[in-house]
Amino acid sequence: MDATHSEVLQETPSVEIKSFFDSAPPLKDADEISRKLKEFVERNSSTPENGRVTRVVCVTSGGTTVPLEQRCVRYIDNFSSGHRGAASTEYFLKAGYSVIFLYRRGSCQPYCSSLPDDPLLECFDITDDSKIQVHPSHAEVVKRAISEHRAAVVGGNLLKLPFTTIFEYLQILQLIADSVSKLGRSAMFYFAAAVSDFYVPWELLTEHKLQSASGPLDIRLAQVPKMISVLRKAWAPMAFCISFKLETDSNILLAKAAMALEKNKVHMVVANELSTRKDEVIVVAKSGNIVVRRDKAQPGAEVESPLVELLVDRHSAYIKEAGV
Amino acid sequence: MDATHSEVLQETPSVEIKSFFDSAPPLKDADEISRKLKEFVERNSSTPENGRVTRVVCVTSGGTTVPLEQRCVRYIDNFSSGHRGAASTEYFLKAGYSVIFLYRRGSCQPYCSSLPDDPLLECFDITDDSKIQVHPSHAEVVKRAISEHRAAVVGGNLLKLPFTTIFEYLQILQLIADSVSKLGRSAMFYFAAAVSDFYVPWELLTEHKLQSASGPLDIRLAQVPKMISVLRKAWAPMAFCISFKLETDSNILLAKAAMALEKNKVHMVVANELSTRKDEVIVVAKSGNIVVRRDKAQPGAEVESPLVELLVDRHSAYIKEAGV
Repeated sequence: MDATHSEVLQETPSVEIKSFFDSAPPLKDADEISRKLKEFVERNSSTPENGRVTRVVCVTSGGTTVPLEQRCVRYIDNFSSGHRGAASTEYFLKAGYSVIFLYRRGSCQPYCSSLPDDPLLECFDITDDSKIQVHPSHAEVVKRAISEHRAAVVGGNLLKLPFTTIFEYLQILQLIADSVSKLGRSAMFYFAAAVSDFYVPWELLTEHKLQSASGPLDIRLAQVPKMISVLRKAWAPMAFCISFKLETDSNILLAKAAMALEKNKVHMVVANELSTRKDEVIVVAKSGNIVVRRDKAQPGAEVESPLVELLVDRHSAYIKEAGV
Repeated sequence: MDATHSEVLQETPSVEIKSFFDSAPPLKDADEISRKLKEFVERNSSTPENGRVTRVVCVTSGGTTVPLEQRCVRYIDNFSSGHRGAASTEYFLKAGYSVIFLYRRGSCQPYCSSLPDDPLLECFDITDDSKIQVHPSHAEVVKRAISEHRAAVVGGNLLKLPFTTIFEYLQILQLIADSVSKLGRSAMFYFAAAVSDFYVPWELLTEHKLQSASGPLDIRLAQVPKMISVLRKAWAPMAFCISFKLETDSNILLAKAAMALEKNKVHMVVANELSTRKDEVIVVAKSGNIVVRRDKAQPGAEVESPLVELLVDRHSAYIKEAGV
């Protein structure tokens, strides 16, 4: 950590953050992940196309888990199919971005959102001469999923990194931030993951499975330190940052989103309500709020399409600002 | 509920059970599930093959969730890939059983356990002439998964019913028990699911997302009533019942399994320790304990193969007993 880095960290509640990372179990494959990130960022910073440096967005997706035991049998989870992150990844790729997709294991994958839960068992058949055949009704969407996904991965425009726990998520996020910080304003963070607000510090976890014989169970959860504000201040201060605020109560949604904008110093907050989140979101920014709706006249149109379009546009403006 | 049914229920802690079911949100598709079960049980009780009445096993699989909010954003989950239940289903089908597979949405499916996480994206390719092609390295296992799965479903030997929450799980389990109880001793329950021991009664749940601004969060969880003992006493008293006990601490495992055998009056308890559960389990019964190990000399051999073999054998003996 260089001097500026540690100086800035001191402005944040560094005790909490230090205690979170100190208490976390060591990240497996940290070296492998760092290597992949280094390669990805190098490739994407050395290939200017049409005179424009490639932009890189880190899309986080799915929910994080909070273990309640060290040898984990029980955990707290956040509901999230990962659909928002997966769909947005497709639109960012289409817009020419390279995407680091930081996703919950088992959550929705880019190009797969219109497929059934178990595509292999539900879309395929074996012919009489023992060949694998896709059902005609699913053929187009299955082909598109396989080919576009492969094109993005093979072309070096999509790097997929899985996580399960809140510990893995924040540790990998720090590695990503460290890597993309050298891209300056060309980097974006799009925090669509549903990150736990509460956790049990690793050292307070019981080693073994909690026993159920002795009546009701009381659990005390500590707050997860707000890492986005640390990322903004120290990890990747030039990156364009979009966070999300999900509530079930529409009465408090916009106020909470505005508070998050202020507190975490992100560039925009996407406010969404659980029940209407697939039709409409409100992008909250200092310059005012913008309602983004999916085009209901167009079958299959997703709200992520105009949302990503708006963000790409604002990101362009943010990059230009620096050149003035 | 008939007279005997309600009489016996009174011996169990019926207040707890009544309160659990009363507090549960109503099960969606209850009529559809009942219809499927009726059809499945009728088909499988009317086709004696080789003079033997078809046996039906209900395999439960994967972990149940416990919502922490009514409009659920956060929940407690039990770790379980569903591998044990999915693999066991294959061996039960092979042994001539018909299987009701009560599984957690998104958990491991029968015939799919040796496939990668996202088989569609990892096993397939698009050829130059735009055809879907399976990678040669995965072809055999993909073909087997599709064909055997389809054969079991189309042949009417495999009924798959998904759940997510503890409420759905126990409500569907009661419907299954009601349906298969008429098969008497030919029915088996194989409780491989990781069912929550603790829950928050629905009426105590906050309607909206818990707010994180106000410091640490304290959660008080009530014990889930032990439904297996109700199933044994009242729902399907003649069915052969196998429950599971998972612990991370081998020192208490066998004692806890023996206690569960006694308390729930099941026929056998499969004791497994988290770290060795894929190699070895101990079947705890009144007649003594039996260690079951996978055949390490045989590549790909699973512990579920000898385990199911043993249980089928014991189930046969249990059916014969009645005829004496």
